[in-house]
Amino acid sequence: MKNATTPPITTRGPADHEVRDQIVAAATEHFSRYGYEKTTVSDLARAIGFSKAYIYKFFESKQAIGEMICANCLHEIETEVRAAIAQTDLPPEKLRRMFSVFTEASLRLFFQDRKLYEIAASAATENWQAVVSYEARVQKLLQDILQEGRQSGDFERKTPLDETAMAIYLVMRPYLNPMLLQYSFDYTKVAPAQLSSLVLRSLSP
Amino acid sequence: MKNATTPPITTRGPADHEVRDQIVAAATEHFSRYGYEKTTVSDLARAIGFSKAYIYKFFESKQAIGEMICANCLHEIETEVRAAIAQTDLPPEKLRRMFSVFTEASLRLFFQDRKLYEIAASAATENWQAVVSYEARVQKLLQDILQEGRQSGDFERKTPLDETAMAIYLVMRPYLNPMLLQYSFDYTKVAPAQLSSLVLRSLSP
Repeated sequence: MKNATTPPITTRGPADHEVRDQIVAAATEHFSRYGYEKTTVSDLARAIGFSKAYIYKFFESKQAIGEMICANCLHEIETEVRAAIAQTDLPPEKLRRMFSVFTEASLRLFFQDRKLYEIAASAATENWQAVVSYEARVQKLLQDILQEGRQSGDFERKTPLDETAMAIYLVMRPYLNPMLLQYSFDYTKVAPAQLSSLVLRSLSP
Repeated sequence: MKNATTPPITTRGPADHEVRDQIVAAATEHFSRYGYEKTTVSDLARAIGFSKAYIYKFFESKQAIGEMICANCLHEIETEVRAAIAQTDLPPEKLRRMFSVFTEASLRLFFQDRKLYEIAASAATENWQAVVSYEARVQKLLQDILQEGRQSGDFERKTPLDETAMAIYLVMRPYLNPMLLQYSFDYTKVAPAQLSSLVLRSLSP
């Protein structure tokens, strides 16, 4: 084990954001392997080779680190989804991709590669800000696609836009939200296609 | 505390099914209050005033009692739903009621009155037979309503029936399945109406 050291941060060293990134990367690795709940900041400090005090210079609590990991993870999912959507101009196809890529990416980032399930559980239970703003951005993305499809004539315009968007968001929610997703593993293969077909039938002009 | 007794079951006493019902009723009460996971058959025996051996004459394990409680609970939910559906002849209205009454009854029976959440958790995790057959019956009920609406001309007939039924079942699932429902409390007021409207739009001929 390395000695716990407190690098002198007043001299020319790595920038603050680099140290923060380094801590987050090491913490992601550590939580993925040993779990979030049982790990303390001391455990984490020992594993990274930093002093606990040094970590506390950058993050006020374990939760603050957890929130950063969660935010990064959600950001990656969102980036994948936006990239997949940008590859097509057809609103119905955008909607299909939104559904399937959200499901695949969430499964992969929360359960397969990283096992960040416990962080997701805390995030959902304690209503972390990263999750709240992620959900708002997903709803906005959905509204934009719907708006586009209404303009192109692909989607009906009678139902109020926010009502349609909210209902579709609720249909997607079990495959977006890791707490629901963990009980939906049996359906992740078929659900995105079947549910987007249902949603598209509901949108037909 | 009562003495634990083993009533002589060979002489004229209550019929077996009455004793089983009595054990299940007492266990439902006990689990609702103290939780399912931590309670042992010994605790239960002590609380009811039966010997552990006597309980084992009727149920081979705590899980067997849990399964009976779960089956009863699901049966009550289903009975409420079928009663609500039977009160209307209009297939779209049947679908709306199916959605709202499943949500209300599941919330009430698993979370409010009885706090049988832990039993639901075991049932879902261990794939209990009662749950599997309940889900199959719910899907059948849905197919019957869809069939009826296709015959009456209320619903479109192009999409294969089993595809439509499965997709709608997936839309309903977060409000039927207690494990998903526990993470959907924020939406139980609005979701049944909004989602049944979406589903009905998807079914329009």
